[in-house]
Amino acid sequence: MRKEKIPAATIIRLSVYQRYLKRLLAKGVKVVSSSELAYEANVNPAQLRKDLSYFGRFGVRGVGYDVASLLNTISGILGLLDEWRVVLVGAGPIGQALLRHPQFSRQGYVFEAVFDFDPTHIGRELEGGLVVQDLRNLPRVIQEKDIQLAVLAVPSEKAQEIADLLVDCGIKGILNFCTTRIRVPRGVSVQYVDFTILLDTLTYKISQSNTEGMDEHVKAGKPKWAREHSWPVVQSNVQKQGVTLTS
Amino acid sequence: MRKEKIPAATIIRLSVYQRYLKRLLAKGVKVVSSSELAYEANVNPAQLRKDLSYFGRFGVRGVGYDVASLLNTISGILGLLDEWRVVLVGAGPIGQALLRHPQFSRQGYVFEAVFDFDPTHIGRELEGGLVVQDLRNLPRVIQEKDIQLAVLAVPSEKAQEIADLLVDCGIKGILNFCTTRIRVPRGVSVQYVDFTILLDTLTYKISQSNTEGMDEHVKAGKPKWAREHSWPVVQSNVQKQGVTLTS
Repeated sequence: MRKEKIPAATIIRLSVYQRYLKRLLAKGVKVVSSSELAYEANVNPAQLRKDLSYFGRFGVRGVGYDVASLLNTISGILGLLDEWRVVLVGAGPIGQALLRHPQFSRQGYVFEAVFDFDPTHIGRELEGGLVVQDLRNLPRVIQEKDIQLAVLAVPSEKAQEIADLLVDCGIKGILNFCTTRIRVPRGVSVQYVDFTILLDTLTYKISQSNTEGMDEHVKAGKPKWAREHSWPVVQSNVQKQGVTLTS
Repeated sequence: MRKEKIPAATIIRLSVYQRYLKRLLAKGVKVVSSSELAYEANVNPAQLRKDLSYFGRFGVRGVGYDVASLLNTISGILGLLDEWRVVLVGAGPIGQALLRHPQFSRQGYVFEAVFDFDPTHIGRELEGGLVVQDLRNLPRVIQEKDIQLAVLAVPSEKAQEIADLLVDCGIKGILNFCTTRIRVPRGVSVQYVDFTILLDTLTYKISQSNTEGMDEHVKAGKPKWAREHSWPVVQSNVQKQGVTLTS
């Protein structure tokens, strides 16, 4: 395995490949071509091969990839061979919707406990059977269940305070649905989910194309089908410029 | 304004700058330094200047940026000077949570109507007063209200069918909470929100650091604070390789 830095976009694409390989395996497909796998992730086959090349040599020229073996390797790279236990902090509408979202358990993410700071939420049993706990229980639960991942879905003004608490309890990764920045120590990662930033990328494109006029194909009355879509991609190349703050 | 291609990451950062400028303006701040604005977006000032340089010249050396003027310019670039009317398709837990999410209206996104294919949802009044409508009304509502943006939060197996319907009705941008790929014609953009792909980026980092051992600083007993976090970034550099499909 080469030592060079893996682009964040490659990691995202590995997730996309991994999901598709899982579906193929479930269907009993044994071998997949690089072009099919690349098509699924909306990249060209050269990009797929480059992505995989960071981690070794895969596939047989002219034959393709062994589905089970490649799935196992990619799952290993992503740390997805085992289930991940997750705590949710924030039992509001977004938090509750996430708990009920089938994709988490399908991908091996198991919500072990739900916490809130709001006394009107605490003690309430949510759909699925988890009972909203007081944040006072957070350190004990994280330690007892050896949890490293947290989903943060609290109001923005509470985000930093609760992120600090999560970090103190040993959490190493936070999926943050709050729209404010949070600061975490080195060794802890935060991934933001900001719906409206994603909408802004769409309004930008729409505004640009409204300004530039219709697409050539549309103008010519020959609509062509493209595969324009965007996977969420992580921007992680800025860490090295991070300002060092003392706590 | 230069004609070169604007990186998707730049557009994401413009959104981040825009939000921060809005907060500054609300606080009555007139001028902001490039280092402060860059810090907020977790980039270095050179990156900020590069991002802005795609769109012209801004700021006064040694003084900074005029908050109101830069906000107005960036909002214009992103197409955010006016409100955007949005339709939501899918009145399940995620859809309902999005409707109640204050960030949308704060950023000028207004949910005009909610649709579902499920007869048990149709006719129900949701919190906020919108009534779930039958998909049969979709073409009329989109046309009457001149809507270009849709949020898609239906089960994955319905995603393509409803995306086709949205495109037929004239929708130009889709924020897609379904975990399957959807195909759209050229001129229509899709932005995916896949929570578990974002979690995978965290498990990758945790797995890597577990393998590599503790961070140097942590080993030395001197925890340093970094600013590691990731804004969601759009991957749009693959469109030019898109396979052309006939509909």
